[in-house]
Amino acid sequence: MLIAYQGEPGAFSEEAIRSIYPEAETRGHVTFDETFGDALAGDADAALLPVENSISGAVPRVYDLLWAEPEMQIVDEAVYRVVQNLIGLDGATLGKIREVRSHPVALEQCRKFLAAHPKMRLAIVADTAGAVREVAALKDPTVAAIASQLAAERYGARVLKPAIQDVADNFTRFFLVRRDGRPPRVPTRACVAVVLSHRPGSLRDALSAFADLGLNLRTLASRPSLDAPFTYRFYLEVENVDASQLDSALRRIDGEARVLGLY
Amino acid sequence: MLIAYQGEPGAFSEEAIRSIYPEAETRGHVTFDETFGDALAGDADAALLPVENSISGAVPRVYDLLWAEPEMQIVDEAVYRVVQNLIGLDGATLGKIREVRSHPVALEQCRKFLAAHPKMRLAIVADTAGAVREVAALKDPTVAAIASQLAAERYGARVLKPAIQDVADNFTRFFLVRRDGRPPRVPTRACVAVVLSHRPGSLRDALSAFADLGLNLRTLASRPSLDAPFTYRFYLEVENVDASQLDSALRRIDGEARVLGLY
Repeated sequence: MLIAYQGEPGAFSEEAIRSIYPEAETRGHVTFDETFGDALAGDADAALLPVENSISGAVPRVYDLLWAEPEMQIVDEAVYRVVQNLIGLDGATLGKIREVRSHPVALEQCRKFLAAHPKMRLAIVADTAGAVREVAALKDPTVAAIASQLAAERYGARVLKPAIQDVADNFTRFFLVRRDGRPPRVPTRACVAVVLSHRPGSLRDALSAFADLGLNLRTLASRPSLDAPFTYRFYLEVENVDASQLDSALRRIDGEARVLGLY
Repeated sequence: MLIAYQGEPGAFSEEAIRSIYPEAETRGHVTFDETFGDALAGDADAALLPVENSISGAVPRVYDLLWAEPEMQIVDEAVYRVVQNLIGLDGATLGKIREVRSHPVALEQCRKFLAAHPKMRLAIVADTAGAVREVAALKDPTVAAIASQLAAERYGARVLKPAIQDVADNFTRFFLVRRDGRPPRVPTRACVAVVLSHRPGSLRDALSAFADLGLNLRTLASRPSLDAPFTYRFYLEVENVDASQLDSALRRIDGEARVLGLY
């Protein structure tokens, strides 16, 4: 099985695939759109896409892509622990680092460490693993990156300080998406997109459609609908649900509702 | 009045301040945290912070900062139309551009234009106006930036192609935040943060507290609470509300609720 991911080799998404689906081959892409497109075209068997981080919150573009392509379904979900590491050249020392490169989200997750090291100038790059690749190519022992352990291994760099994120419990939740795919086990969860009618209480009533059946919501994300400025689509995730319960909940909703996956 | 904003001179936030509060002086900062901190410390009179874009969605860090500092209040709200422009050197031509630099959100908003110009390599930088500054300094007519009209003026660069965003109706909604500030007019809107108890239907019941009083929700955003992984705080905005209605809605909520501003 070939699984597409977003990022350069050594990205957290690749680290997650190796941990969760150790038999799979991997292929990296620059954007979420290209990663999704690789599985939509059938060139990759599936795509593993981050949908939520326990610190940074939702990754809304992934929901938008699922909404736009009804042929693609969520078939599995996995939670992976993210450990941010300060990575430099072999021979570099923590005290001599003057510049730290990483993706804005990784820098944000290490705010306390960076505040305690004010001599480290921050540089924003597009990819955590790409930052390690740059550090390895630069051969400047005063420049470091924040990235995964796998990225250090991939580029022959060294972890100068492991686990530098502010919050130890840093998890990313991923969806495995496939074209017309079947879930690997009996599904118990669902992700639903809802476009509500424009009247007071419409969201409350949509939530009641689930609550009245005793169904628990796990997450709720809102995104611009793009039909008109400041109108929204809502993405709900429901747990301990089967297909027939989901069907009856959806029939109670006043608006357009679509299941993005049962997993 | 001195208003702090996030970005380099010429950023969309500065363009918005000049349009909405033409009498104000402006001061730019690298991060939202520093911008907010400038007004919290009282060095700036207020900060203008983007809270939502009609295409990209919520700017969640701004809600988190308001939650963390009860002394800071939303006192005004303004919607500003964002126009993304392709900006290059004086003498550059559209057909010869080979690299386009901008903030990831600006690049995302111009996806169709960029897809139609595949010879333009994309480079991600931290700031739209900073991209124009770089283009002006590089003096390479094949490199362009995507940024505001004001940024082109600020750095003596030229708009090669105006209004290149995919969706013409591209608006950013801003909050003006002040320390213990008073709103400039009679407030009719409110922003409320809610931490709910962990039981099925708790969000539905919180929304009912508003719906039952006939209060209309404008937006709902969810953010990690950071108390435990995948637990959430919700930010609601309510319209056509006065302080006493808001007070009775909040008393009906089973959980912690706090008003982040009446405006």
